[in-house]
Amino acid sequence: MSTGRLETFADGVFAIAATLLILDVHADARGHRLAHSLEHAWPQYAAYAVAFLTIGIIWVNHHACFNQIGRSDRRFLFFNVLFLACVAFIPFPTHLVAEHLRDGGLRAAAVAYGVTLVATALGFALVWFYAATGRRLIRPDADQRVVSGISRSYLPGAPTYGAATLVALWSPVASVVLFAVIAGFYVLESSLFGKA
Amino acid sequence: MSTGRLETFADGVFAIAATLLILDVHADARGHRLAHSLEHAWPQYAAYAVAFLTIGIIWVNHHACFNQIGRSDRRFLFFNVLFLACVAFIPFPTHLVAEHLRDGGLRAAAVAYGVTLVATALGFALVWFYAATGRRLIRPDADQRVVSGISRSYLPGAPTYGAATLVALWSPVASVVLFAVIAGFYVLESSLFGKA
Amino acid sequence: MSTGRLETFADGVFAIAATLLILDVHADARGHRLAHSLEHAWPQYAAYAVAFLTIGIIWVNHHACFNQIGRSDRRFLFFNVLFLACVAFIPFPTHLVAEHLRDGGLRAAAVAYGVTLVATALGFALVWFYAATGRRLIRPDADQRVVSGISRSYLPGAPTYGAATLVALWSPVASVVLFAVIAGFYVLESSLFGKA
Amino acid sequence: MSTGRLETFADGVFAIAATLLILDVHADARGHRLAHSLEHAWPQYAAYAVAFLTIGIIWVNHHACFNQIGRSDRRFLFFNVLFLACVAFIPFPTHLVAEHLRDGGLRAAAVAYGVTLVATALGFALVWFYAATGRRLIRPDADQRVVSGISRSYLPGAPTYGAATLVALWSPVASVVLFAVIAGFYVLESSLFGKA
Repeated sequence: MSTGRLETFADGVFAIAATLLILDVHADARGHRLAHSLEHAWPQYAAYAVAFLTIGIIWVNHHACFNQIGRSDRRFLFFNVLFLACVAFIPFPTHLVAEHLRDGGLRAAAVAYGVTLVATALGFALVWFYAATGRRLIRPDADQRVVSGISRSYLPGAPTYGAATLVALWSPVASVVLFAVIAGFYVLESSLFGKA
Repeated sequence: MSTGRLETFADGVFAIAATLLILDVHADARGHRLAHSLEHAWPQYAAYAVAFLTIGIIWVNHHACFNQIGRSDRRFLFFNVLFLACVAFIPFPTHLVAEHLRDGGLRAAAVAYGVTLVATALGFALVWFYAATGRRLIRPDADQRVVSGISRSYLPGAPTYGAATLVALWSPVASVVLFAVIAGFYVLESSLFGKA
Repeated sequence: MSTGRLETFADGVFAIAATLLILDVHADARGHRLAHSLEHAWPQYAAYAVAFLTIGIIWVNHHACFNQIGRSDRRFLFFNVLFLACVAFIPFPTHLVAEHLRDGGLRAAAVAYGVTLVATALGFALVWFYAATGRRLIRPDADQRVVSGISRSYLPGAPTYGAATLVALWSPVASVVLFAVIAGFYVLESSLFGKA
Repeated sequence: MSTGRLETFADGVFAIAATLLILDVHADARGHRLAHSLEHAWPQYAAYAVAFLTIGIIWVNHHACFNQIGRSDRRFLFFNVLFLACVAFIPFPTHLVAEHLRDGGLRAAAVAYGVTLVATALGFALVWFYAATGRRLIRPDADQRVVSGISRSYLPGAPTYGAATLVALWSPVASVVLFAVIAGFYVLESSLFGKA
């Protein structure tokens, strides 16, 4: 089984999950008060940017993995469905964080966001290590050093997000800052130092 | 006529129907009550997971069928449109079940869910048996044993969901548990024992 | 310029416009009254089915046209964008018809639906006749009889929907029945007698 | 790395962002008052048309660029994600302009729209000039005159939208008219004089 249709389906879910984020950006005000309302809505823009970027990072990584993957099987399709169910869930906790950034619900919102990201990272690891273990679905001509490099680079994902989630129990604000920093760091690191 | 564009369109509908499910997940609460509200919302998460998985299973099966199908005709396109109209309808009864899991509306919601799944299974059978009967649209090089195996595997679909729907008349809760068990069973069976 | 990416974009708009229709299907009721509410909501199901089918028919025809089209140019891309803007508008008047099927707003809703369908048919004609006139974008190996047959088959589209729209001024109900009959007739005619 | 999957993802975001615009078109009225309500809602139709057209123009240009681009790298993927985050944001300020066309919030809405379009134009320039500078990702067989022509044609984008945004501080209505004129001019210019 080739991976073409799996990539089309995955790209659809990524594109929709990212684009749906805009439905959560609101600014309700009448007349001249709109300017004030738009300024006050900055947590929504920040949440939109961080979530779009986060989904974009995951998409770029999915892309990089599938460059090494040449085949697919039924179990691999289901693992991808599980993983994509996590990705498509991201808009919900993102909205919670934006909504509760200035009230007492931020702890619960940050934990919900963190748990979703940990689940997504675990789902990604399931997809990748199923394909990479014993080169089960890897293209015959793929360079083993690249495959091993990808494997190493995914190990810190779930623990990092797990740690940032635990920080929420102590300080929700610090946790949210950490989530944004992780996303920003990843983009900078990949785009400044990434080779392919 | 090749099947490329039909698969792109179908993958789009699958991806959107699955991803739209997140729009039905809500947790409205102010401040510190958010944690309680998020715990109380578990039927929504369960509904999201079961519906995403169910649409994922249907997508995996659609994929498996189209591996055997090499051509398309106008009637086949319309049968796929009918089938996809059923798939895209699934988010609605899913939402009903989640919304009414703890009130007297569960019977009606479970029946609506079951009827939708029966219609989807019938639509799928229409698509497959139109293509497979007399190998009308089957690839010339497809193995007839694989084709017959797929035909056999789709026969129990509609009756199984029909039976689970009838159970709702007697016990809505048992019916909903059955829907989740059918989805879980299918994933386990396919991923543990499925060959391709 | 090849037509590959245009088809991907168009298939995306078709798939999303059709799938978004489900967001307009609602049944709000508490507890045991849900069954009654679900029965009362039948105009929404009918509107969903007619609109999904209508968008499906347009997609099948777009598909049939693009089987004959081999190239694209910048003007053709814009004509397709105009046409797709009409297709993506269809969910709005569809929702109006379902919402007002049993009140005095049906005339305005039916006119809105009809005008949208006339605009869509004109947009489609613009796309097709731009490509087909003088075989501007037609594949070199396309059979001229097939091309001319498609041209003939699109001539009645706009006038038929225009006539059904005018009927709304006299009887909105008759007009809505006509819209459903046109969709049903088209599906039957294509799938029973269509050759490819 | 080939650009196939990047184009699929981008086309998905374009298609969804454009199609989601319809969710902002509303006409709430009971019975016979619907006709009046539909007439009163014309700013929504105009906003839908301008925004769909604007996203369509951007898509056509993205398409034209990628005809010259043959390869992709990780940084290029992220630049595209940033750019697409701007595109997917367009429905929000579009909705604000339509909502506030007849009240004192138009200035803030027009500024929000203009800033979004400036950011989108800058994002587009980032994508294009990263690929075109030193022919970094350009196809080996691409004509340098075409590449330079595209580079020249994108230079006025951000300044034009920036100027139209500044006009909003003096006259919001003039600014909104300018946004529509820019979109209309671009379509006419491209489709009347564009060569490919």
